Amino acid sequence: MDKNIITISREFGSGGHTIGKLVAEKLGIEIYDKDVIRKTVEESGLHEKFVKAYGEFAPTADDRFAYGFIDLDSVDDSPVLQVWKAREKIIKEFAESGPCVIVGSCADYILREREDLLTVFLYADEKTKRARIKEIYGDSDLKTRNRINNIDVKRSIHYKYFTGREWGKAQNYDLALNRGSLGIEKCVDLIVTAAR
Amino acid sequence: MDKNIITISREFGSGGHTIGKLVAEKLGIEIYDKDVIRKTVEESGLHEKFVKAYGEFAPTADDRFAYGFIDLDSVDDSPVLQVWKAREKIIKEFAESGPCVIVGSCADYILREREDLLTVFLYADEKTKRARIKEIYGDSDLKTRNRINNIDVKRSIHYKYFTGREWGKAQNYDLALNRGSLGIEKCVDLIVTAAR
Repeated sequence: MDKNIITISREFGSGGHTIGKLVAEKLGIEIYDKDVIRKTVEESGLHEKFVKAYGEFAPTADDRFAYGFIDLDSVDDSPVLQVWKAREKIIKEFAESGPCVIVGSCADYILREREDLLTVFLYADEKTKRARIKEIYGDSDLKTRNRINNIDVKRSIHYKYFTGREWGKAQNYDLALNRGSLGIEKCVDLIVTAAR
Repeated sequence: MDKNIITISREFGSGGHTIGKLVAEKLGIEIYDKDVIRKTVEESGLHEKFVKAYGEFAPTADDRFAYGFIDLDSVDDSPVLQVWKAREKIIKEFAESGPCVIVGSCADYILREREDLLTVFLYADEKTKRARIKEIYGDSDLKTRNRINNIDVKRSIHYKYFTGREWGKAQNYDLALNRGSLGIEKCVDLIVTAAR
């Protein structure tokens, strides 16, 4: 296997966790998903709620004014930066410890220097995503749509804020897959083929 | 094979023709590339130069003012529409005649109603594209860069003009591949895997 470290970025409802798990199983490697949050709580000593808010979503406007854009080389003890730095350390440790799949957490950016990195972006049409989210949360149609929009907008702002890159722009990844038209099984096959 | 018709859209210099040819060879199916222009000339009776200009690139500002945005259902004998309609007919005929790969020509959009369609977008980093274009045209560095920018901008305007969609936005395709990081052979494998 050439590409030992696989990062999966995904639109909400496109099956990132499921696909990541199946890829890891097929390749016989580790998967890290919610583990990133758990370990970041341990590492930073910050409250889980705070780590979740800054680990997945966008900083508030107040934070932007208070801390400005992040200079990763600066020494700064702002909680936002503490979460980012703890997460950066954890993700690098995951990658160092051996072949793995990492879902979310800007891992594609954090590990961008690695030559054995395969970066994947998963997306899906609205219909597929709504069906999936409705199944999980049992929302009304309107609530489902709002939930998808909210989370994807937050993810894209979060990514832009910390990495300076456009989230979901194909050109930023090795492989971008439409889970709606291809289906879960084919997405798994394609990621495994790209990694081997 | 589930997906009988494969369309390849591509950034200039990302190896769309080469990859398309290898995919067609592996699957034992037809490939249509320059054929679209040749057949459009025959079909429309218009001059090759004109067909090339309207078949790949953007209409000029004058055309936009003269003809406005294209309503494909309208009966209009403008040369721009003649080229588009001739090409639409030819691409549908190619698809009807059996499994094939079609490179460029908005074929992904023209054939969007087909259930056996696999749409691929190929891109590459600047370095990969420049090396490829320099090899073909022997330009200076600056001329190579300008050539790439010009052609990709024209392609994206052309696509937007005729289809109303964003060219190169991952979410508009089934599969988007980074030919720079994955290499030609892996891109071929992935497209074949997705099609089968």
